[in-house]
Parts: sequence; structure tokens; C-alpha cells
Amino acid sequence: MHTGDQLSLRAEHLAVRTLGPTTVPSPLDGGLLRRQDTVHYVAETDRVLLDDTLDMAVRRGGATRDLPAFEPGGPRARLFFDPARTGAGIVTCGGLCPGLNNVVHGLVLELFGHYGARSVTGFRHGYRGLTKAGAKDAVGLTPASVDGINGQGGTVLGTSRGGQDPAEMLDTLLDRGIDILFVVGGDGSLRGAQAIADEAARRGAPIAVIGVPKTIDNDLPWIDATFGFQTAFGRAAESIRAAHTEARSTPDGVGLIKLMGRHSGFIACYASLASEGVDVVLVPEIPVILDGERGLLAHVLRLLDRQGHAVVVVAEGAGQELFPPSEERDASGNARLADIGGLLRDRITDHASGHGRSISLRYVDPGYAIRSVPANAFDSVYCARLAQAAVHAAMAGRTATVVGRWHGRFVHLPISLVTGARNQVDPHGDLWLSVLEATGQPVWP
Amino acid sequence: MHTGDQLSLRAEHLAVRTLGPTTVPSPLDGGLLRRQDTVHYVAETDRVLLDDTLDMAVRRGGATRDLPAFEPGGPRARLFFDPARTGAGIVTCGGLCPGLNNVVHGLVLELFGHYGARSVTGFRHGYRGLTKAGAKDAVGLTPASVDGINGQGGTVLGTSRGGQDPAEMLDTLLDRGIDILFVVGGDGSLRGAQAIADEAARRGAPIAVIGVPKTIDNDLPWIDATFGFQTAFGRAAESIRAAHTEARSTPDGVGLIKLMGRHSGFIACYASLASEGVDVVLVPEIPVILDGERGLLAHVLRLLDRQGHAVVVVAEGAGQELFPPSEERDASGNARLADIGGLLRDRITDHASGHGRSISLRYVDPGYAIRSVPANAFDSVYCARLAQAAVHAAMAGRTATVVGRWHGRFVHLPISLVTGARNQVDPHGDLWLSVLEATGQPVWP
Amino acid sequence: MHTGDQLSLRAEHLAVRTLGPTTVPSPLDGGLLRRQDTVHYVAETDRVLLDDTLDMAVRRGGATRDLPAFEPGGPRARLFFDPARTGAGIVTCGGLCPGLNNVVHGLVLELFGHYGARSVTGFRHGYRGLTKAGAKDAVGLTPASVDGINGQGGTVLGTSRGGQDPAEMLDTLLDRGIDILFVVGGDGSLRGAQAIADEAARRGAPIAVIGVPKTIDNDLPWIDATFGFQTAFGRAAESIRAAHTEARSTPDGVGLIKLMGRHSGFIACYASLASEGVDVVLVPEIPVILDGERGLLAHVLRLLDRQGHAVVVVAEGAGQELFPPSEERDASGNARLADIGGLLRDRITDHASGHGRSISLRYVDPGYAIRSVPANAFDSVYCARLAQAAVHAAMAGRTATVVGRWHGRFVHLPISLVTGARNQVDPHGDLWLSVLEATGQPVWP
Amino acid sequence: MHTGDQLSLRAEHLAVRTLGPTTVPSPLDGGLLRRQDTVHYVAETDRVLLDDTLDMAVRRGGATRDLPAFEPGGPRARLFFDPARTGAGIVTCGGLCPGLNNVVHGLVLELFGHYGARSVTGFRHGYRGLTKAGAKDAVGLTPASVDGINGQGGTVLGTSRGGQDPAEMLDTLLDRGIDILFVVGGDGSLRGAQAIADEAARRGAPIAVIGVPKTIDNDLPWIDATFGFQTAFGRAAESIRAAHTEARSTPDGVGLIKLMGRHSGFIACYASLASEGVDVVLVPEIPVILDGERGLLAHVLRLLDRQGHAVVVVAEGAGQELFPPSEERDASGNARLADIGGLLRDRITDHASGHGRSISLRYVDPGYAIRSVPANAFDSVYCARLAQAAVHAAMAGRTATVVGRWHGRFVHLPISLVTGARNQVDPHGDLWLSVLEATGQPVWP
Repeated sequence: MHTGDQLSLRAEHLAVRTLGPTTVPSPLDGGLLRRQDTVHYVAETDRVLLDDTLDMAVRRGGATRDLPAFEPGGPRARLFFDPARTGAGIVTCGGLCPGLNNVVHGLVLELFGHYGARSVTGFRHGYRGLTKAGAKDAVGLTPASVDGINGQGGTVLGTSRGGQDPAEMLDTLLDRGIDILFVVGGDGSLRGAQAIADEAARRGAPIAVIGVPKTIDNDLPWIDATFGFQTAFGRAAESIRAAHTEARSTPDGVGLIKLMGRHSGFIACYASLASEGVDVVLVPEIPVILDGERGLLAHVLRLLDRQGHAVVVVAEGAGQELFPPSEERDASGNARLADIGGLLRDRITDHASGHGRSISLRYVDPGYAIRSVPANAFDSVYCARLAQAAVHAAMAGRTATVVGRWHGRFVHLPISLVTGARNQVDPHGDLWLSVLEATGQPVWP
Repeated sequence: MHTGDQLSLRAEHLAVRTLGPTTVPSPLDGGLLRRQDTVHYVAETDRVLLDDTLDMAVRRGGATRDLPAFEPGGPRARLFFDPARTGAGIVTCGGLCPGLNNVVHGLVLELFGHYGARSVTGFRHGYRGLTKAGAKDAVGLTPASVDGINGQGGTVLGTSRGGQDPAEMLDTLLDRGIDILFVVGGDGSLRGAQAIADEAARRGAPIAVIGVPKTIDNDLPWIDATFGFQTAFGRAAESIRAAHTEARSTPDGVGLIKLMGRHSGFIACYASLASEGVDVVLVPEIPVILDGERGLLAHVLRLLDRQGHAVVVVAEGAGQELFPPSEERDASGNARLADIGGLLRDRITDHASGHGRSISLRYVDPGYAIRSVPANAFDSVYCARLAQAAVHAAMAGRTATVVGRWHGRFVHLPISLVTGARNQVDPHGDLWLSVLEATGQPVWP
Repeated sequence: MHTGDQLSLRAEHLAVRTLGPTTVPSPLDGGLLRRQDTVHYVAETDRVLLDDTLDMAVRRGGATRDLPAFEPGGPRARLFFDPARTGAGIVTCGGLCPGLNNVVHGLVLELFGHYGARSVTGFRHGYRGLTKAGAKDAVGLTPASVDGINGQGGTVLGTSRGGQDPAEMLDTLLDRGIDILFVVGGDGSLRGAQAIADEAARRGAPIAVIGVPKTIDNDLPWIDATFGFQTAFGRAAESIRAAHTEARSTPDGVGLIKLMGRHSGFIACYASLASEGVDVVLVPEIPVILDGERGLLAHVLRLLDRQGHAVVVVAEGAGQELFPPSEERDASGNARLADIGGLLRDRITDHASGHGRSISLRYVDPGYAIRSVPANAFDSVYCARLAQAAVHAAMAGRTATVVGRWHGRFVHLPISLVTGARNQVDPHGDLWLSVLEATGQPVWP
Repeated sequence: MHTGDQLSLRAEHLAVRTLGPTTVPSPLDGGLLRRQDTVHYVAETDRVLLDDTLDMAVRRGGATRDLPAFEPGGPRARLFFDPARTGAGIVTCGGLCPGLNNVVHGLVLELFGHYGARSVTGFRHGYRGLTKAGAKDAVGLTPASVDGINGQGGTVLGTSRGGQDPAEMLDTLLDRGIDILFVVGGDGSLRGAQAIADEAARRGAPIAVIGVPKTIDNDLPWIDATFGFQTAFGRAAESIRAAHTEARSTPDGVGLIKLMGRHSGFIACYASLASEGVDVVLVPEIPVILDGERGLLAHVLRLLDRQGHAVVVVAEGAGQELFPPSEERDASGNARLADIGGLLRDRITDHASGHGRSISLRYVDPGYAIRSVPANAFDSVYCARLAQAAVHAAMAGRTATVVGRWHGRFVHLPISLVTGARNQVDPHGDLWLSVLEATGQPVWP
């Protein structure tokens, strides 16, 4: 995401779609809706600024009132749907992420607790659960049935990868009297949500499709951080600690830790900053230089000389430029990543051997362990509040919309905005600078 | 903090003090400083907007370029101090808070690692360590001596409450050749830091005093969240879980949990949102109504009727209006809080008895347990980056300045700005609304 | 428990009661029952020795074959009950203890999984659930309904203190066709179980009553350690760590931690041994000496002189001899303990004041937090295996029997044996010696 | 270990070697040594019975007083070494294990705290640190220098695999005035310790060599459980939980977890019993049957049919009989294990494919993560007490001796006894029976 990209965004790019006029008075208790206009509350009619620096605001030119801004989240005084007659559905898609159950729990509680919704249906195993065949496994969800699920990792609804035919999925929603569909999923799943919303619009079906953005890699743009990310990098930091302990306890010990991150190295960066003793962080956004005086291999040997051990953290998508191009795809249609962990393990060991040095390299790949843990306290709060915001957005008739947090505020974003770009570690940004400072690693390229 | 307060702030209120011209080239590696102007990096000459809503920006009137904004944190190309000749000191003050050791660790690593500072001195036991007598216990800090402290709660430097004579403390700094003093402390300690900076200015001593704001209650304004806050409410949520477990396992079980929060109920709010099963949250910002149909006592009985148990979370500073006024002060000079936990325990039990009901109330006060734990992964990252920012600010000659985070950006704030107001839960804001939604408690008053 | 007590035990004291001949072939898979006679398996006809020292064995006199020994636990080839026609009931009694849900879970799985029992009924809220009124709340338990409860603290069945009329409870069992009752409870509850078994015998009702001994204080005799004890002292050690951190971070800091332990100081001893930095441990079994040169108060001052801080751990039942005798009783009929924590807090502070010293004492009482956490891995295994043993014992027609572990073996013990004495920290034993070595505290009296 | 093996053990096999007469009065405080003869304390002159079942005792024939028994651990009234003139050394060898630092910490505290030893030397990186070259890195250890290490995984002394020349190592000890060497290590390292003790005996050097047995696999015989084992299987259970969560969240999800255990499946068994949802456990002691109606592959498909997912735990040394024999050795000289995890992953996937089924198999290998964590509370206590026992044994002049726990008592064992056999899961024992009951897996062969 470059400055230019953000500069090109105008108010119209940030507007979300609404199903129609909001005419139903909200059943929320008067007290809940008697919000006052304060700096802690963004009124329905206000907007949350896209930019947060003076320079960016000034460079846009024009008047202050034309600065691009997002619609705020939160309860509305008047709704599109009549809650007592509204049926809602929930589906969780794609890879596991800490907090999935918390989002489901929060949606169910808000739908029943404050709005008194007619029913909530949980579709099983991702979009597969919205096919004609899959819908048979759908389950009714109630506050009692979701009691206690916050403490569990995974998703009680199950999940799967891949999309399904939007028309068939819409049929399922219509058959079952679902007025609102909540899709908890990542980039691909949100495109699927958009497709369902588009199909509904085409048929004139007043169905709201609201996305709750999910990506453990934190690679969705215009969102402060996605839910589960803090939990995930906290768990990843434990793996780094284990590898660091091994490396320090062994003569010429090298700890090599591979973490999640196909296109974005956020988990690698944050987990490393959270840990003592990381010497090098490799991310997809920065080319990996192995050879030469300033290359990784020589650097590792210097670290062994200086401190007797070394710890290297690598995101799974880093260093792909070191491999020949490949056309292979995995089940989800993503390019199959080359095995950077294996390459580094071999190259570091061989390089050391070549210098007459027998190192003790431990390769740690925590893999699934990072994404299947229960949400930590921060993510629990975040998921609960995201779920509240999602229900408010849906009841007010927003569709093809995701709820997210921008500069600490809950906002509504068009789905197309968050699936149209990717959030990455900026090689010229604050975060990477902090990593360079903390590790003291060479600045590549 | 009301809208009016924020509206009255102008650019000049956000400007920080600098000791003099920055003429020394930074020793930071070229790569580290070759930042480009991107949305992820705020250049030295740019500013971070105070406001984040369109309405607020528009209401100020005037041109976009006159919007009030903070100086960004981060490394500077040219410095005020010549690092190799610079001696730094660190002092930690006031109550414990998760992350103190991480800040100390981060300061030492940044001072030595990138700037090659001459020396770093740790003063012991808060401002007491800056008195003539106390300074004898000061210790030299090095990367080796702080190795591993991140995993420990508390502060290796020790701490104490209360202030000391600024002139005497400045004498200590001058005697020991300290050019930069880092003060890690809260409201009162930051006033002390201001006093030292003011005394230095009076004497013409070119000493930089940089504050790293510390408050487990998260009650400092113009800062997204203070370090340790996430760890603290995460730990508090465990206590709620214990009380909830007890309450659910017992017929007519009531869990009553008292949490920290003298003036601000953030820990109570966030810990409750992070937990399943909290029925009522009481905070200092909202009056507590005990009696009457909509009062707490009747509500608890209704909860017992409906679900067989009830869980009430109360911040220590809540409900003070229920007690007769008192002039008592504690050792730090703060008004001594009346025992709201004890009052609630007695009143709830008596009220139930009065209705012929023998409840089983468990009163949980985790107290110190919340503030003495090691920082979690998020706070570890935050402390490491705050420490980096603090060193950059100091080397560039900023003084009477705190480093903080605003809308996700590291910024410089005048000490007087953060000690001049208090961050509180806004009864009309988003957070409290989320609490009301999550608990379903009556809206008071 | 003195040597004399153990010496007086003879084979007949260790024999358990059986309802009648075992004539039903066990449905357990042939493989499960084709155990061979190895040192890892005690055959049905073998016995587990009471004594583990040569001296004790020799002092008994007589032949080796007359050494007193327990009946081993484990599956039997032939049963008293016909599993497919057997209804079982479960009740959890008294205070919470980590592992209660694991025992319930294990009982349900074993009853259905291997024996194919007819039904399992969960009685709610302790013995109250076995009264005529309370039995209305009883719930059917199945593998599906107990799925996931192992990760939760507390007990899904609820609990309460106090006994009920054995005749009324037996009526409930007979009314509901319960053949086997599992009672998970402590000293008092096990006496209640004995009373039900006795009443059943009196009426000639072939009902098996099996106790699963529960005491977080580990104060039941002839059992290696009770379930939940390891989890509990591990959690208590965290509280000690918090207090230690506070004490070390403050000049003249004193950490005072009160832990559970009415009559037995096991939690205090083990939690202290598990923690660094405990200076004094006070337990009910050893008188507390406050005054004089070798007293606690002078010792604490010496610790402050030597190391700048002090950490004191006290079991709630310690030092009762320092208070005037009282006749007060709590709801369970136990003598109300005098507040040793408060006394120590005041006396230590006053003594220091008297010596012109202003100490900073933090009093930590983790209370319920220790007993409401989920079982750790060890206790999870232990509970699962205890539950298996309990089901085997019941199916074979044992009654008025508890299952326990002795020298690492699962055994059957008569209820009367474990309720007839109390397990305590022996002032002359190995454990207390280890505590004295680890703390370096004065040897009292 | 079969019954026959244990039956063949006689009193003489259990006797440990002593350097000479004990003539030095112990400096331990009178109180510490005024132990009385109780069931909780085994006097110096008493013995701990080898057998714990009546049948075993009877089968030996002979008088009760001839039952084989171990020498108890604990402090002696008279010592062989004069503590104030005694220098001790510590070395940690082989793979990491939770608790290594606790043992080092405990040794240092006991040596200085109660005995006032002259010096304690830490040799670095295993036996490599006892070579002439390696000894240069040796460090002095004091209570201050080991402060806080209990909370860290790994070993502050470092470790390495493989042995060194006993004569050279003895030279190092003599050069440095080491009277007592504590070796914390496994099977191979303990043989090395025996060799040093033998070499010392050969030269007439009065040097005590005491082993603290370390094996994360718990595969040393005549020891209840080795330190770190509980921590290790607790951590392993977390990995199982992650895999279980993944499997349950996915249609036809299979979780496959590989755990440590070359020759003994204790970690696999205990970690599985500690977890909900394990369907199959494979250990080295029991052949793995893949094919046929009762084979693993068919069983997994049946599990998927019945419950929609399956969880399989495999010890790294299981199923080796499925591979062609190999002569490969690893660096420590152990036979290189064939990759059972990879084989199962492929065979299960292929078998399902062959039945037209596309499963989603997640393979989890927590590897080093299990052994590098800090000791849990139980292991912390155990290590502290083992260290105390080791120092007592050494001061009393025992050599070629390990300290261990048998039936809950601390005892002295000849090194040759514990290195001469291997502790394994008995296919006919209680533990495996519990696993079969908990999983419901087929009984092989």
C-alpha cells in the first residue's frame, strides 16, 4: 500500500451500500441510544477520517469538509429490518483464526439480547454449508447453545476452504428465510460474500450480507489489525522463545523459526519484537540476500562468533525469489509456496560446514498451533465489539459491507475496498524500522 | 474529557520543547534512516492529526493545514547530543505495572545498540534514587545486565511513591554527568519530570527529560492506551473467570470482583468485555444506584431468579458518592477511597436476606496480582517500540516531553498536556455502550 | 498420622465391603482384560502393601504374607451388576477443587464407553440434589453432554455444603432406579456416602456407593495426593510470585501470602518449594513463634537488613494458638478460623515501626482463585484414571469404598479408613525438612 | 521390565558405593537433623522397599527382613567431606529437559546455604566442559548468579551430546580441586559419570560423582518419574489440543501428532490421557498394525464415519517394525529412527483416497517446544528436592550413585542399576490399560 494508493481514494470509494430506507424504530433501550456527541462517540451522521497525518490531509487540496472518511459503526436509531421478524445466518470460512468462536458468540448474544431477532442459523463448514446439500447440517444457535464457546479455539460451526455458487447459496438463504448473512472470512470468502450480495441485488432480494474480516496474517488493508492477530503473534513468540532457549543452550546453536505469513510478514515482525534474542527477521516484503559479505549466511557466522548462537525468524512467504518460478497451486488456488525454511536450514548448515564449523541448528515450525488457540483477552474484547458492530450494521440495512476498526474507531467499509488491496509490512515504514533497530540485522537490499 | 476540551486545543498546545539546534549527524546506519515518505511512516517534518472525525475537523474552521497535530516520534537525521559522549539515566516511579522491565530493557538496548551511548545509569527505587543519599545505590546498566529481564514482572530498578526536591535531583544528574533522564511513571511522576526539566532550564543545564507514561488504569489523555494495560485487564479477566466459576457452581451464587481503577473504569470495562458472564460493571464515571426497582440490589435478585447466579465487577473508585465525604489521604497524597467492595458485599447479602434468600457471595480482590505479572506479547512489543521512540526523542534534544501513541502512531507530547487532564470512560462513548450491550445491565442514572 | 497409627493397622482394617458375588461376565473387550501378571499390573487377587519401608515391615513381626495390604483397583473379569441394566448417579459435594469436571467426564465416558450402562444421572448442587425437592433438577448425562467440560473449572453439576438425611437420599436413588452412586467429595461428604451405604445395607438395597476423595488441602490419609492438589499449589505459586515481585521492587518490601489449608499446610509447603524467594512458611502443624530473638518478627527484620525484602507464606489455619479460643462455627460446622493473615500484617508492620522502620507490606489472599481453575495436565490424567477405577470398583459391587492411589497404585480403601484420620505435614518428615532447607527459616519450636 | 527382572534383584544389587567413613559432624542446624522416626521420614539406617505388592514380597521367599530395599536419601548426621573445604562442580549433559536450571539452582543453594561449601563451579556445555580445552569456560556459581534462573527453560550451563575421555575429565576435576561432581544427565551421561567415578577409584582420588537422572522420555527404571516429565507431557497435551481443534473444525479432519519417545511411549500416553478427544495412541512398545479390518487405516475411516474427525498420537519410536532395518546412527550414536509420522500421514491419506474420500490431515510435530519450556510447579518442587538429596548424598561420600524417587521416597541407587535397563510402557500394565479405555482403540496385536 503506497501513499499514492491512499491519495487516490475519495469519499465515494469509502461509501457503503444500504438496502433501503430505515423506517423501523430500534428496540434498543432508550439509554443505549441516548448517545451524546463526544470525542468518544461518532454520531451516525459523522464520519471517521481516512487520513491521520497533516501532510496527507493537506496534499489532497480542497476544503476540510471534503476529506475522505468512513461511515462509523454503532447502533442506529432507525432500522431497515424489523428485528422480531428477522432471521439471521452465520458462516465461518477459510483457515482457523483465534476468535472465531468469540465472533459467533457475540453475534448470537447481540441478535437475541438487544434486538430480539427471530432466529439465528449456523451454517456448517464454510460456504459448503450454504449449498443445498450442506444446508441440511445447519443448526439453530441460541445464547444457551453458544455458552462457553469463547474459551475454545477453532470454530464450533466448522469451516472449509473454497467458494460455492452464489446463486445456489442465495437460494438457501431464501428457502430458510434468512434476512441477514454474517460471513466471517478472509479475502476470498469476502469476495464470495460480495457475490452473494450482488446476486441478491440482481434478484431484488432484500438480504443484507455483512463481512467480519478474518486473516491471521493481518493482510487486509484499511483495518487497524484483524481479530486474532495479537493472540497469534503471542503464541508465535512462545515458539521463538523455545528456539532461543535451544540455541543458547548449545554451542554454536542456531534457532530457525518458520511462521505464518504468505504475503505479509506481520506475525514474524511482531512475534520477533515481542521476544528477546531474535537476530534476523525475514519477511515476504523484503528480498532475502543469502550470499556475500552482507548476506544472511555470513551474518549468521558473525553472530556465532560474537555471541555463540543465533536466532532467525522467517515468514513462510519470504525469499520466494530465491526459487525458480512455479505454477503449482494449492487447494485454495493460491500459488504453492517454495520451502524457504528447508532452504535456509540447508544453506546455513552447509555454509557453516564450509567454514569448518559444525553448528547445531534446530528448525521450529509451530504451524497450526498458532491459529487454533483460544483468543486472548484483547482479541476477546475486539471480537465481542466487532460482533456488536456487525449486528448494528446489518439491522440498519447495510450490505456488501465489512465492519472494521480504523484509528481505533469501528467503521463500515465496502467489501470491495478491503479485497482490492493487501496490507503489507512497509520496508520504509515504522514497523520495519523497529524490527531493524531491535535485531541489528543488515539492511537489505 | 469532553468535546469542548479537545476543540479548545490548538497547534501551540501540542508543541514540545527542544533543548537547542540539532547539529550532530546521527550514527544510525544509513539504511535505518533512508525512510521514504509513505503512509506507514511520518516524516520528521510531518505531523499526526489530533482529530480523527470529519465533524471535529470541520468544526474547527480554518484551513486544513491549520488542523492541530502532534510531532511524530522516530529517529532524526541530526541530533542535539553527541551519542558517544552522552550519559543517560533511567528511573521507574510509582506503582508496579506490567512492562516496566521491558521499557528499561528497550532503553538500554537502543542507547547502546544503535547510538553507542557512553553510559546508562539505573537509579534505584524511584525519585528516592535521585536524592543525594539514594544515588549511592545507582547501578550501571548494560545489554548483558538487562538480559532476560523482559520475562520478569516488577522493575529491576525498584520503585517508590512520592516526589523529591527537583533541585536536589538535578544536582545528582549534574554530579554524575547525566545528559538524558528517562522517567517511567504516571501522572505525579511526570509532574516531577517536568519540574526537573524546568529546573534544568532555569539553570541553563542542557539536560533532556523524557517521560514514558505509565498508568495501569489507562487514565492519561491523548494516548491510545498505556503500556501494561492489556496485560493487566487480561489478568483481571482471569479473576472474573474464577468468580464466575464459583458463582455458577453454587445455588444462588454471587461473584463480586473488585478491580483497580481509582478514577477511570477502563480495567473493569475491558476485563468484563473479555469475559463471559459478567452481569454488571460499576465504574467511577457512572453513579451507582443501589436501591429502587432499577437499582443494583433488585437487579441482582432478578438475575438470581432468571439464571441462578450473578456476577458483578466493580472498580475500586466506583460508588464513592455512596459514602460520607472524607479528608483522608494515603501515602501518595491521594484521597483515600472508601471500601465500595465491602459495602456491596454487605448490601447485596442483606438485601437478599431481607427477601428471605440465603445467597452465597464470593468476594474476589485480585489486587497486586494484576500489576506484577510480566508483560504479554502485545505490551512487550509496545514497550520495546516506546523505548526506541523515547531514545530518539532524547537524542534529538526534546525535553519535558512524553512519548506516546495516538491513533496508532508514535508521537511526542508535552508533559503538561498529559498531566493536565484525565482519560476516563465516557458514559456517552462507544466503550460504555459496548459494556451496556454485553451485560444488559440497567442504564443509570 | 504417627508411626504408631500405621503400625496398628492390620489387614482387616484395609478390607472393603462388597455387595455380593460377582457373577456377570464383564463386557470389556477381551484385550482389555487379558492382563498379565507383571510389576506394572496388580492382579485382582494380589494386594498393594501398606508399608514401604523395611523397618516398618519388620516391626510388624509375623510372616511376609501377613503384611497389611490394600485391594488393587482395576477392571474385574466378573461383575456384580449387569452393566446394560445398571443406572448410575453422580454428585459433587463441598468446595470447588480443580478436576471435578474431569472426574464427571471420566465417569460418564467409562460408564457408557466400555460398560454400556443404561443411564447416568447427574444430581445437582451436592447432597441437596438428592433430596426429594432437589432431585427434580437432576439431569441426564451423556458423552455428548459432557464434551468439553474438562477445560472448565468448577463443576457442571453444581455443588453445595452440608449433609442431608441419608434415608431421604436413598429414597431418591431407589425412586430413580439408581444402582450405583458416585460421590465426589471430602471428609464430610464421604461420611455422608458411608451413611447412604449403611442405610442401603440396612434396607437390603443392593446399591453401591463409591467415593472419589476430594480435598484441595490434600488432608486425607492413605492417599498419595488428592486430585486437584497439584493444580492448586501451582496456582498458589503464581500468587507467591506476584507478592515476591512486589516485595523485591519496593524498599523494605514485605510480601505476605495467605493460602488455603485449615488443618494441613501442604499447599503452603509445596507452593513455597515451587517458588523462588520464600523466606518463611507457616503451617497449622507447627506453632508460630512471633516474639523473641528467634521469633518471626525479629527474623523478618533481619531479612530486610540482609536482602532488602522478605516473603512470608502462611496457611489459613496456622497460628490459631495465638488467638483466644472460640466456639464459633461456619456454615459447614467447622470451627471458624481466626484471621492469622490480618494478625501477621498488623504485628509485622507494628514491630517494624517500633524499630523505626517504615516497611511496605503487601498482603495477598488469592482465595477462591486457586480452587476454581481447570485441572492441569497431571490432574487431568489422574482424574481420568480415578474415574475409570471408580467405575470398575462399582461394577464389581464394591460399596462404602473410595478409590485412591497409594505408592503410585490405584487401590480400594474403606471410606471409614480415610475419614478416620487426617493427613498432615509431619514436623519430623521429609517434606518439612525440605521446606526448612529451602527457606532457611528458624526451626520452631 | 518384566516381573522376572525385578524378582532377580537382591539386596546387594541395590547397595551404593561410599568413598569412606563419615567422620565430619554435619553443619546442618540441629533442628534440621533432629528428625524422628515417623512414617514420613526414613531414618539413615532404614531402607525403602523395592516391592510394593504382597505377591511379589511373598514370592521372594525368606524372611521379611531380607526383602530388597534402597538406601534412603536425606541429610546425614556425619559426613565424609568437610563442607567448608569442599569444592563442587556441576555439569548438565544431553538434550534439554524442563527443570535443568531448577536442579542447578537447587544444588547451588543447598551447597552454600546449609553446608557452606567452599566453591561451586559450573562446567559449560556438557562433558565438553570437562576437557582441558572446555574447562576454560567454566564459571563460578553463587546464589546471586543463579537468582531467577528457575523461571527459564534450557540450562544456563549449556549442554552438548556425547562423551569425553574419563581420564581427561578426572584430570580437570583434580586440577581445579573439585571434590564432588554433580552430573545431570541421561542414560549415556550417567555411564560417563560411572566411568569418572571408576577412574577416580582406580587412582585413589576421593571424588564423589553423583548423578541426577534426566530423561524427558521417563525411560529410566526404578525411578517413579524423572524430573521434567510432567511439564513435558503437559506441553505436549497443548499440541494435541491444537490438532484436535483443527480436526474438529474441518470436515473429515484428521489430526496426527508426533511426540517424543524413542523407546518409551510415556509422553504419548500421558499427554493423550490429559487431553480430550484422542482416538488412537501409538507407542514403541506395541507393534503398529496398519492394514486389515482391525488395522489403523480402517479404524481411522470408521472414526471419520462415526464422528467426522479423528485424532492420532504417535511416539517417534513407534512402528519402526514397518520399515526395513537400517544401520544409520545419529550424532549421539543412537540408531536413526525411521519417519513414522511421515509414513502415517501418507498411508492414512492414501487409504482414504482409495475409498473415495478427501480428508484434511494436519500433521503436528511440536518437537523442541516440549523440552525447552520452564518447569511447572510440580517439577520445580521435585527438582529442588532432588538437588537437596543429591547434595546430602555427596557430602556423606556416596559416589557412582544417583538420587531418585521410589514409591514417593527419595532414595540412593547405584548408577549401574538405572543404566542397565529401560523403563517402558508395559503392554500388560495399568497405564496402557487406561489408554485403551480412554481411546477405545483396537487392542493390538
